[in-house]
Amino acid sequence: MTVIPLMVDLTNKKVVIIGGGRIAKRKVESLLNSGAELTVVSPDILPEINALYLEQKIHWKQKRFESSDLTEAFLAVVATNDEAVNAAVIEAAPPNSLINAASDVIAGNVHFPARFLRGKLTIAISTNGASPMLAKQIKQELESRYDENYEQYVDFLYEARQLLKQTNLPRHVKDAYLREFLSPSFLQPSMQKEVIVKLRSFFK
Amino acid sequence: MTVIPLMVDLTNKKVVIIGGGRIAKRKVESLLNSGAELTVVSPDILPEINALYLEQKIHWKQKRFESSDLTEAFLAVVATNDEAVNAAVIEAAPPNSLINAASDVIAGNVHFPARFLRGKLTIAISTNGASPMLAKQIKQELESRYDENYEQYVDFLYEARQLLKQTNLPRHVKDAYLREFLSPSFLQPSMQKEVIVKLRSFFK
Repeated sequence: MTVIPLMVDLTNKKVVIIGGGRIAKRKVESLLNSGAELTVVSPDILPEINALYLEQKIHWKQKRFESSDLTEAFLAVVATNDEAVNAAVIEAAPPNSLINAASDVIAGNVHFPARFLRGKLTIAISTNGASPMLAKQIKQELESRYDENYEQYVDFLYEARQLLKQTNLPRHVKDAYLREFLSPSFLQPSMQKEVIVKLRSFFK
Repeated sequence: MTVIPLMVDLTNKKVVIIGGGRIAKRKVESLLNSGAELTVVSPDILPEINALYLEQKIHWKQKRFESSDLTEAFLAVVATNDEAVNAAVIEAAPPNSLINAASDVIAGNVHFPARFLRGKLTIAISTNGASPMLAKQIKQELESRYDENYEQYVDFLYEARQLLKQTNLPRHVKDAYLREFLSPSFLQPSMQKEVIVKLRSFFK
């Protein structure tokens, strides 16, 4: 299986998680800030999932899985220990559905990589299941290499780029500026501020 | 817009690229090894795209875009300079379609991050459009940090994990081995070979 990384906008998309146990809990938690509309389908759910339901962060259909639960689903997450249920979900999914299957037996077509965010910057690491431990270790290394300062730094690069676009400077000069801003010194907020003030002064 | 990274299996999936110019060329090239069935829809195509068509690596519908071109499409890639066509594609896409739109005006729901592969290891970097230059720089840094040796190393970690699974060793012992294999010395093929020979001897 060849998998490629795609950045997907889940905002307001219906994501259906089938199952209410430990795996479902982990999947729900990892999708909680994605902007997706999350629905858990399961007769029983763990207290942690129930808490999210009570806080109205997710929907809960307290029932066994039926095909109709997948109507309009953008992404189905198969998260039960019951291989018969897992197989039924795969069977019921409309063609071209996105399916994440934690099951060993049935493969979906979507995996969640290890990932971390620094504002607009996302780094994702996947070993395609070969070594989850290595993915986690690389993630930890990169979290310390690209630390919290990158959140503001990427915002700075974005703003500087938008301001430069509005100037009449030749393309190669704009690019030269943008390249310069990639040097480590611009990770300092004071340097960033100086640049933004200077760029804004172009428009006065 | 919040985007999250998903590892998606495009094997045998229909991917439709609307447009035949420079943007289409770049998208086709980045999807060429994904296992997807690629179809370019455009009255005209660049010579490089035509070459791929002649090599039967992609399909080509030599025509203007119509809604019916998206039937069964798993992913639509909008890659023309004509905003009217781009808008028509978005309009025609079935609900829940995956759409990558290079257009400034119309947003799709899928972006392609910067990425590189080391065998089963994939690392993807996205700034959500804020700074493509930073994404590229981080990619280059990581390509040299996680060099070609990682391809074989990840295969080794995979094989070692599979062999350990088949043993009767207690879970904590298996995990201790797997953690040990994450230390840098195991990047050396000779060390890897030694481990595999040892693990295989368990089954003799």
